Parts: sequence; structure tokens; C-alpha cells
Amino acid sequence: MEVKNKIILALDVPTTRKAIEIMDNLSDNLNTVKIGYPLVLAEGLESVTRIKEEYGCRVICDFKVADIPATNEKIADATFKAGADALIVHGFVGEDSAASCLETATKHGGEIFLLTEMSHPGAAQFLQPVSMDIARMGVKMGIHNYVGPSTRLDRLKKIRNIIGEDSFLISPGVGVQGGDPQDTLEFANAIIVGRSIYLDNDPVNALNSIIDSIEL
Amino acid sequence: MEVKNKIILALDVPTTRKAIEIMDNLSDNLNTVKIGYPLVLAEGLESVTRIKEEYGCRVICDFKVADIPATNEKIADATFKAGADALIVHGFVGEDSAASCLETATKHGGEIFLLTEMSHPGAAQFLQPVSMDIARMGVKMGIHNYVGPSTRLDRLKKIRNIIGEDSFLISPGVGVQGGDPQDTLEFANAIIVGRSIYLDNDPVNALNSIIDSIEL
Repeated sequence: MEVKNKIILALDVPTTRKAIEIMDNLSDNLNTVKIGYPLVLAEGLESVTRIKEEYGCRVICDFKVADIPATNEKIADATFKAGADALIVHGFVGEDSAASCLETATKHGGEIFLLTEMSHPGAAQFLQPVSMDIARMGVKMGIHNYVGPSTRLDRLKKIRNIIGEDSFLISPGVGVQGGDPQDTLEFANAIIVGRSIYLDNDPVNALNSIIDSIEL
Repeated sequence: MEVKNKIILALDVPTTRKAIEIMDNLSDNLNTVKIGYPLVLAEGLESVTRIKEEYGCRVICDFKVADIPATNEKIADATFKAGADALIVHGFVGEDSAASCLETATKHGGEIFLLTEMSHPGAAQFLQPVSMDIARMGVKMGIHNYVGPSTRLDRLKKIRNIIGEDSFLISPGVGVQGGDPQDTLEFANAIIVGRSIYLDNDPVNALNSIIDSIEL
């Protein structure tokens, strides 16, 4: 997956209209967006289809899928059918659940990202003690793409060491949550940025400033 | 929450039409259903609103919410606005994430269920070692409702011991996944049953058989 300018835009907005308004301004400098449940619950999976068709961009659905294998399969199936290119999947629920998403993705020619560790404070409680084991599980399963936190760079570095240089690692938490773009890209292939771009008074300038601050 | 006949019907079907067809036959003996992402991704949150209005039943949205606090809040907000009575929330993402759902639920007059441990084999990998700690976290947070597996009764008993007799515990995994209704109800207040009812050639009879097999 080649991410233009190494920036994935998190389109965490409540309506497709708002997402389109943002993309109208930013799509020249981006080719990959991340869409989560808030938008999809408000507007349906049609929002994924629409944004993909409108901008020809890649869409990563950040659904943090965390159910039993049979349900994970149904979620993944619906998501890829709507046109998603990739799906973010929790590793914490176990190998069978993640494998169910991986198989469904492969069937549709899509990809999954395995979530190893998250960027918020609560991730330290139960997730952090096993996040490296989750990364190891992903490697054993042959998963190529991973998600790791920009807010804990020592941890991101460890995740990179486990998954190897050839794996693809993306990192949320840059901006509002405190992660630094350039520092994060020392270990990640791309950063995920949302609010600090689209909530800025001048989103185009905010995006360009981040692009200028990183070595491409 | 009083669950009629101690049975929650898991409406894990792909269309609202199919859900309504099932409920037309079964709603006399049920007052609580569980709806997951597969149906909502296919039909939108309108499916929740529709089923609730049509049958006056309580709807538990089984979204296994597992994101950062800010996103959990948005997911919970949309879900309760659509008319859901309760939302199932993962505990392993940490207290702040679960608290975000709890606060949003309370604001809407709704409830959350804290998921302690799941019923599938993969739950043994990362979730089982911390599921009792997740239950303890829930008690500390003042959460009243919990979800625990019918496929591992020794574990369900431990969860009941931690959350206490006054808490409300529901249990999936009965039927296709192997859990027994009566044995599960020794520790749980209600069981969640789906496929072994609605996939039966005679769903009314399948439901009645389960009702007959349990002591109400």
C-alpha cells in the first residue's frame, strides 16, 4: 500500500457531506482515508462507496472488529462489498477472530490491518501487556499490515522490530492526541491524522504544514 | 432489566425484513432482542428503530464497542439516538473507553453491558487471562450489566462471584456454540440464543422447547 505523502486522513466527521467538503479541499495531496463507525452509523456503508468513487482514493474502514469469527466474517464481508480496501481488526479477541477477517478480506481482494496497541491512556490497562504478543500472532498468521500508537514511540519501535521492515505499519494519535509526525515516521510507514487537519481553520494549510514537516 | 422467559433473541440475520419475519412468529414469548453490526451495516441503524417500534421490545445493540473514548462516545450517541436500550461494550480497551460509553448511555437514559469474556475458542488467548480483572473494573465503575460466556461455566460462575448477586449477567454461546440453557441460568439472569432458534425449521417450537427446558 503506497500512501501519498505518508498521511492517512481520518475522516471522523458525522456526515458524508462534511467528508466530501473536506476531501474537496484536500484530495490533491492525499490518496488514502480512514473511515470509522460514527460516519457509517450515521450514513450507512454507502458513505464508503461514495467517497471511494468520488475521489478514487483508498478507504481503510476503522471498525476495530472484535467479535466471534462468524460475526467478524459478516462484518468484513459487508465492508469489502461496500468497496473498502482495508479493514482494521482487533487482535485481542484471538487468532480465530482475526483469521476470519483475513480470509474474508483475501476473498474480496482486500487487506486487513491488525491493531496491536492503541493510542489512548486506557490502552495501558489490558492491551499494552499483550500488544507485542498480538504483533507476533500477526506475523505467524502472515498478516502484512499493522496499526501501532504514535503516542508511545518506544512501543511503536518494538512493534516494528517484531513485524519486520517489510511489514506495513500505520500510526494514529498524531496531532490532538500528542504524537509527532516525523518522530512517528521513523518507525511507521504512514501516519493517521484527523482532527488537527479538518478542525483547523485552514485545513489545506494544516495538511501542507504536516507534509512540510516530514521527510518524504 | 426484566427479560421475558429469560431469553434474549440474537437477531443475527442479514435484513430487517428477515428480522421482522422472525419476530412476527416469536414476539409473543420474547421482550428483548440483540442486534449486531451485520444487520446494522446492511440496513442502517433504522433497523434498530424499526424493530423496536414494531414490537415494543427492548433492543440491545451488540456492537462490542472497542475504540478510543472520543470515538466510543460517537458510536454510543448514534446507537442510543436510534432507540437502542442498551449497548454491549468491550472492557479490554480500558476504563476510559468504557466510561465514555457509560456516560453517553446515562445521558440518553440507556444502559451498557460490559463484556468480560467471550464464548469462542480465541477468547482463551488474550481475553481470558484478564476477564476477571475486567469484571472487577466494571464493579469499580458502578456498571450494573455484564456479558459472560455460557461455553465456560466455571468462568461464568467466577464472573458472577465478582459482580455480585445484584448485577445483571447475560450469556451468549447457548445452542450452536454448545452452551446449555438451564446450566447457564444457574449463574446468568438471561441467555442469548440465536441460530438454534431462528435457523430451526420450526422456530416457534425451538423457542418453546428452550422455555420448557428452563426453570423460570
